[in-house]
Amino acid sequence: MSFLTDLVPAELLSVFSASAGGEEGAAFENALLSLFILFLAAKAGEEIFRRIHQPGVIGELLGGFIVGPFALGLADVTLTATVFAELGVIILLFVVGLEVRIDDLFAVGPMALAVGIIGFILPIIAGTAVGFAIGVDNLSAVLIGLALAATSIGITSRVLAELGVLDRAFARVILGAAIVDDILALLAIGLLSGLAEGDLGVDTILVLIAGLVFVGVGLALAPLGRRLPREIFLWPKFADTPVVPVFIVMFAGALLATFVGLAAIIGAFVVGLIIAETPVREEVEHGFRSLVGIFTPFFFAVTGANIDLSALLDFELLIVVLVLTVLGVVTKLVGGIVGSFRLGKWNSIVVGLGMSPRGEVGIVVAALGLSLALVDNETYAILLAAVILTTLVAPVMLQWAIPRARRDERHDPDPEPGAA
Amino acid sequence: MSFLTDLVPAELLSVFSASAGGEEGAAFENALLSLFILFLAAKAGEEIFRRIHQPGVIGELLGGFIVGPFALGLADVTLTATVFAELGVIILLFVVGLEVRIDDLFAVGPMALAVGIIGFILPIIAGTAVGFAIGVDNLSAVLIGLALAATSIGITSRVLAELGVLDRAFARVILGAAIVDDILALLAIGLLSGLAEGDLGVDTILVLIAGLVFVGVGLALAPLGRRLPREIFLWPKFADTPVVPVFIVMFAGALLATFVGLAAIIGAFVVGLIIAETPVREEVEHGFRSLVGIFTPFFFAVTGANIDLSALLDFELLIVVLVLTVLGVVTKLVGGIVGSFRLGKWNSIVVGLGMSPRGEVGIVVAALGLSLALVDNETYAILLAAVILTTLVAPVMLQWAIPRARRDERHDPDPEPGAA
Repeated sequence: MSFLTDLVPAELLSVFSASAGGEEGAAFENALLSLFILFLAAKAGEEIFRRIHQPGVIGELLGGFIVGPFALGLADVTLTATVFAELGVIILLFVVGLEVRIDDLFAVGPMALAVGIIGFILPIIAGTAVGFAIGVDNLSAVLIGLALAATSIGITSRVLAELGVLDRAFARVILGAAIVDDILALLAIGLLSGLAEGDLGVDTILVLIAGLVFVGVGLALAPLGRRLPREIFLWPKFADTPVVPVFIVMFAGALLATFVGLAAIIGAFVVGLIIAETPVREEVEHGFRSLVGIFTPFFFAVTGANIDLSALLDFELLIVVLVLTVLGVVTKLVGGIVGSFRLGKWNSIVVGLGMSPRGEVGIVVAALGLSLALVDNETYAILLAAVILTTLVAPVMLQWAIPRARRDERHDPDPEPGAA
Repeated sequence: MSFLTDLVPAELLSVFSASAGGEEGAAFENALLSLFILFLAAKAGEEIFRRIHQPGVIGELLGGFIVGPFALGLADVTLTATVFAELGVIILLFVVGLEVRIDDLFAVGPMALAVGIIGFILPIIAGTAVGFAIGVDNLSAVLIGLALAATSIGITSRVLAELGVLDRAFARVILGAAIVDDILALLAIGLLSGLAEGDLGVDTILVLIAGLVFVGVGLALAPLGRRLPREIFLWPKFADTPVVPVFIVMFAGALLATFVGLAAIIGAFVVGLIIAETPVREEVEHGFRSLVGIFTPFFFAVTGANIDLSALLDFELLIVVLVLTVLGVVTKLVGGIVGSFRLGKWNSIVVGLGMSPRGEVGIVVAALGLSLALVDNETYAILLAAVILTTLVAPVMLQWAIPRARRDERHDPDPEPGAA
């Protein structure tokens, strides 16, 4: 880094890494520097993309990619960076939860259920068909389908927030459908792992029940948030504002969700829904603004830094990747249009596009397939590339479709009851 | 943690750890959970201490100690936790810098210089004498002195902020003296490492010059902050508020300081001094409040979790530890009283007490001694215990002395020109 750093033992370069030897001191230095480079790259990328009127989030992803290990290699995706990224998306989904009123979410419940279920089954069918076409065995084909089915709403949430449309019906349908999607993924992954390892027992059912109980109890508790007085959040002496107590509850909710097998962000989102009903909602929203600004760029930068598009370099693989990507977007689009047709044409298209990014959830499923030996390295690379492409394409298409959906709504002030 | 976590592959438990195998997935889970436990313990400790009218920071330290590896072992001090801690103290010192006007700091310059130099030389003499008394060789004796000389102002800063006295003359003297102290430590550590390794050349001098240039340029730039218009901070499209751009500058300043061999917190403090002169000071202060609330508890919790008092269990070692601790506090106290006698009795006592905690800086020096084979494991344990005791004792004594210093000031409204 600098000629000076060679002269001073690594342990002295910072306040910390005291107990560390030279190697751990260097790891600490690297973790801190990688964080800085990832953050800077995300912001520089966002800046450029905003100035050319493209979604800032794509700029953050590409910024992370450019400095990451698959391009310039300036920053490592350390465990620490991954933890920052995870907290970033936890905070993001918590804040999204703050913007949603539970009654509005319940109102779109049946629609969200339809979007979630249709948009989960169709990609499984399509992915399985592709699997058979490229000649893998049954379970492997299903895994390809499953990797194509799981949605990641981190990126969609960010685009919705950037365009200021989190209060729209289509946004609530997307969020509700994402919960349905996550529960279905939990079930399907449990089933598939059980089948692959040859022991499919009560365990899978227990995990599913725990997931359902978590979401059910969370949603049922949300309306009770209205009864919590502001004083409860300021009861701790350490709390001048509700920010720190709420941060603890959010973090606990995210961890609890992971313990029952759900994604951490579902837990954070549910806590956000609950806090949204309390009198401290605005204070919390205001106080969390800096946390969103500092933590969430790590999520996008790290996601970008993990982009490995090596499968695109081989022409035959590229074809499969593109087929999977198109099928991935189209099946979610059909899920959105069919499931939420009552919202009107453009609104239901936005729902479908919003469910399209597979992001890190698709990668997790692909990695699971690799660890269970259900897919080989080549198929893994294909899945990775397809998942990444759905993630990159969706924000651009959302940016194009959302203004049209808003215009639709303006023509029809109350689209819910029977717009289509 | 939960019976359910055994049923689901670790990779699925979170959004991330996608590229990870099971082992890295488990490390990720552990890092996230350890962060949560450390944060919760810090806040619980602060709560209890505040309710019994003791400094909250001691509660945070003890909370971290209790859940840490030397007590219950509920949380690991992972590399990630250490990075959070480092960012916590960087943010803390940046915010402290925001509270200080550069002209006020220059006004106490000569006093800070005196406090810093006297309070650095006396502990070296005392520590070296103890070293000779316990029969170690020359260089090792000097290292003991050096570990007793380096001050950590993270804890003092927190106490000063908690009591709302960062605007007092004694606070500025402490902050100025801490800069002097850090530069002297840089010089002394360079010299000692050079001597121990047998090559003392231009390198040492280069490091010192770089450190001096960094601080000199930083302090010289600070008044120019007044000329920066608010628009500069909001020029980036990604910036709705100055928080994110300023965060980047702060982080860069901290890294730059480490590259020239200074502590990261000196860099962050200097950036804080510069931002304090700009029109966005209040906005930044306001926006950083949540960041302080979320990051700084990790600094105290991790410092607490690293507390290893095993040397206190042996009676003979205990005597040496107590002698070193008393000498450590008394020498800094003399430095404060002699160096800032013009502030009046209680004010100068507070300065001396404020310089007393050795914290992680003392531990770093002790660890350096261990790595250079200047001290053996027993002496290292002694140093560690003495450093920790100065760190635990200082906040309690500050809490007792500061109200007296404030009463002093009230009797004499303008103590600067010649109070004593």
